[in-house]
Amino acid sequence: MNEGIEKDFTFMDFNQAFAFLTRIAMLSEKMNHHAEWSGVYNKVHIRLSTHDAGGVTENDTSMAASIETFI
Amino acid sequence: MNEGIEKDFTFMDFNQAFAFLTRIAMLSEKMNHHAEWSGVYNKVHIRLSTHDAGGVTENDTSMAASIETFI
Repeated sequence: MNEGIEKDFTFMDFNQAFAFLTRIAMLSEKMNHHAEWSGVYNKVHIRLSTHDAGGVTENDTSMAASIETFI
Repeated sequence: MNEGIEKDFTFMDFNQAFAFLTRIAMLSEKMNHHAEWSGVYNKVHIRLSTHDAGGVTENDTSMAASIETFI
C-alpha cells in the first residue's frame, strides 16, 4: 500500500454527494489523474496517490487542494 | 456485515466507468435505493443490500438487473 492522502466527506444527501463526485470526475479527466473513491448514500471517501511514483506527488496535493474548494 | 449482491466492472477508461456510475446514480435517486460503490480509474465495484432489512431484497435484485443493462 502506497502512501496517500485520504479524506471522508459527508453530505446532506446522495444528490449532494454525487454532485461532489462529479466535480472530482471532471477534474480527474482534466488532470489525467484519478482519485480512488468509495461511498454509499451521503458519504464519499477519497484517496489520492500516484501509483507510478509509489506515493504522494504534486499532482495529489494539487488535486486535494482543488477538491477542498468543491465542498 | 449484511448479505449483499456484489460485482466488479472494468471499462476501457475512466470516462466509461464514470458514465456507468452516473447511470447508477440516476437510478438510485429514482428508486430511492442507493448502492455502495468504490473504484479507481476504469474499475467500479458495486454492492447492493438493504440495510433496514439486513440483507438482499427485491429492491436489490431489481437494481442489479437494471445495472446489468447499463453495460
